[in-house]
Amino acid sequence: MSRILIRAMVLPMTGPDVFYPHGEICIENDRIVAVGAEGSVSENFKTDRVFNLPNDVVMPGLINTHTHAAMTLLRSYADDLPLMPWLNEKVWPFEDKMTEQDIYWGTALAICEMIRSGTTTMLDMYASMEKVAEAVLQAGTRAVLSRGLIGNGPNGERALQEAGDLFHQYQGAGGGRLKVMFGPHAPYTCSGEYLQRVKAQADSLGVGIHIHVAETLDEIKMIQEQYGKTPVEWLDELGLFGGHVVAAHCVHLTAKDMDILARNHVCIAHNPESNMKLNSGTAPITELLDREIVVGLGTDGASSNNNLDLFGEMRTAAFQQKLQVNSTALPAYKVLEMATVKGARTLGLEDVGMLAPGFKADLITVDMDQPHFYPRFSIPAHLVYVAHAGDVRTVMVDGKVIMEERKILTLDVNKVCQEAEIRAKRIAQELNG
Amino acid sequence: MSRILIRAMVLPMTGPDVFYPHGEICIENDRIVAVGAEGSVSENFKTDRVFNLPNDVVMPGLINTHTHAAMTLLRSYADDLPLMPWLNEKVWPFEDKMTEQDIYWGTALAICEMIRSGTTTMLDMYASMEKVAEAVLQAGTRAVLSRGLIGNGPNGERALQEAGDLFHQYQGAGGGRLKVMFGPHAPYTCSGEYLQRVKAQADSLGVGIHIHVAETLDEIKMIQEQYGKTPVEWLDELGLFGGHVVAAHCVHLTAKDMDILARNHVCIAHNPESNMKLNSGTAPITELLDREIVVGLGTDGASSNNNLDLFGEMRTAAFQQKLQVNSTALPAYKVLEMATVKGARTLGLEDVGMLAPGFKADLITVDMDQPHFYPRFSIPAHLVYVAHAGDVRTVMVDGKVIMEERKILTLDVNKVCQEAEIRAKRIAQELNG
Repeated sequence: MSRILIRAMVLPMTGPDVFYPHGEICIENDRIVAVGAEGSVSENFKTDRVFNLPNDVVMPGLINTHTHAAMTLLRSYADDLPLMPWLNEKVWPFEDKMTEQDIYWGTALAICEMIRSGTTTMLDMYASMEKVAEAVLQAGTRAVLSRGLIGNGPNGERALQEAGDLFHQYQGAGGGRLKVMFGPHAPYTCSGEYLQRVKAQADSLGVGIHIHVAETLDEIKMIQEQYGKTPVEWLDELGLFGGHVVAAHCVHLTAKDMDILARNHVCIAHNPESNMKLNSGTAPITELLDREIVVGLGTDGASSNNNLDLFGEMRTAAFQQKLQVNSTALPAYKVLEMATVKGARTLGLEDVGMLAPGFKADLITVDMDQPHFYPRFSIPAHLVYVAHAGDVRTVMVDGKVIMEERKILTLDVNKVCQEAEIRAKRIAQELNG
Repeated sequence: MSRILIRAMVLPMTGPDVFYPHGEICIENDRIVAVGAEGSVSENFKTDRVFNLPNDVVMPGLINTHTHAAMTLLRSYADDLPLMPWLNEKVWPFEDKMTEQDIYWGTALAICEMIRSGTTTMLDMYASMEKVAEAVLQAGTRAVLSRGLIGNGPNGERALQEAGDLFHQYQGAGGGRLKVMFGPHAPYTCSGEYLQRVKAQADSLGVGIHIHVAETLDEIKMIQEQYGKTPVEWLDELGLFGGHVVAAHCVHLTAKDMDILARNHVCIAHNPESNMKLNSGTAPITELLDREIVVGLGTDGASSNNNLDLFGEMRTAAFQQKLQVNSTALPAYKVLEMATVKGARTLGLEDVGMLAPGFKADLITVDMDQPHFYPRFSIPAHLVYVAHAGDVRTVMVDGKVIMEERKILTLDVNKVCQEAEIRAKRIAQELNG
């Protein structure tokens, strides 16, 4: 049995007024058993190890609700281009060249970056997901995996088969660290009939759906022309929403769309940096939250961001709403909720995202003993408006320390970086000579 | 005589195609004497010290063209509020309580944060500027200092006197590291007559003007009602623009305003994060650049941002233009120019902002041997879209190393943080009990 005590400033994300400037957390194996003010809960707790970090904030590990991890291989490969040439001439030809092993190393690189920036869980959508599973299991992180399904593509049927295989092989693997969802790519890349088959299969396995929805105005136009409806109306009519659904992006929504999403308890993965960089638009997050829709935060892939840093994503999420709505929109604590407890709810994970007894010990510590964190008026404001990826000191997932003093313990970071470099450059060479 | 050789990847910011993947820089005393590919320029250069940093990028130190450094004391003191209650009930009462010593320590804290995030030069506007000068001289950084002048306030005349005193005491101090500008706050806080007197005095001393212009729609409305013109038209009519002028913000401009700014060679300090967080708006940077107007980047004060990190500011500048215009707007290299060579031009500094023979040795190194910087397809894209404050390893100003391996050598960082904490909390206590 492992018994760990952490003494630090504790922001448990169990409510806006709960903060222990001198706090402690007791962890037994994979779970938190007690959280409180220093000395209040640890009296009879015999520990193997004590972390004394009085100048660190300990908080739940961040949750990335939408990414394509292996796309780190395309980081800074093509930027500042119009959307269609970027996709047609750069992204898709590159992806066509990626092997299973490339996907493994690209994902491992993504996970290294995520750990270093405090992300403990991701919802991923890509191909060769067994390679993604392998990387996650080795890294010791948590993930929900969805095989991307492009129904209109040549591999639509094979991919759906693989999605089922993925479930049978990996659902609950790694002591519950891995879960599986079905990942139909988008309403414009899958027919209605295909989406309904995906939904039926997901239902039969009792898992949810992860899909891109209403990301760009082009998509809205395309679906309107084809079906005479908005993407949300179309998916609702198909019956896709009767269960656990993560809708990524949701930038362009009508009031009726939002009512449909609310009525069906659809969860939203909000990707503000990708939406800005690709000129997709500003998602109506303030209105979604007003309807009590669950919204998590995502980075999207590293080709459209170009990092996987949820601290930056939190700041951008707040700034973008304040620019669009007013300076009181999306205050700091609500942003933190999106990156933690609401992120967990988005992914359908019931025992992560908060520091509370019975929850999984997925947590990070942030080093606040640095000039940019003084004075210490508000820890939530500091975390959202000031912090950056480099401030994360410690990462624990499932009760195991996977990063300590910024050193990742579970992966060979140098090897991962070198493999990613070699493989990405090989593909670029094949394409561009 | 000091002779330093740096071997690293070199991004000199002398043109979009100039990059040495294996480069070197020779520095003699305060100036760069040679830059080139490794082995090409150092043959006969006898060095006291060699920095071998093959995985770092060396680039010009970043230039913050608009800040109120001492406002670090208000960091995360008040957020997510409407503009007027934020100013009236929070910011101004707090500032009223700040002593000269508070301003010294708040500025020292700001400079610690700036050094750690790669900023070597700032244009500051505040009160008690001799305390700001003291902190800059100790820290070893570079600064242009402007005493904030609120003509309509009770101290308008005294402040103008202090602005002149500041010039006589500090112009050229620290071996040229300090320069002085005049800082009339804004067209809505200074009368036309006062602005003309400031301009006459600045002209008589041969220095420039640093002023807030067209930051909010409220300002536009106020000036329109009072003078029947836009702020830019009003300042032009007053003759304020006939010399070196830094206009901060410039969010709300007409086409005619932009023509006036271009004709008068007014330089713009763009503060995208402050403009988003305070709901000020999106400045027309793309249109300003189309008119070949010089635009630098600023963080504004830490009460409206809440950090002084120009890496974040670069990313936000690009994202904001891409959201507003299209995905090709403000590409990475142009953003880097704003933070370096264009920043120097904004401040009227002719020998900083580039790594070239004859230029001052103001430079930073960025540690690229981290997961988020692989693969290495584009160093400019990495610096703008991926990098964060914590990636800066080394900082040199005027040929002197002031940060090494992330340790600041010129200030007692712990002492600065503790003093800032104590002083900020004292003021909050006085105000809020």
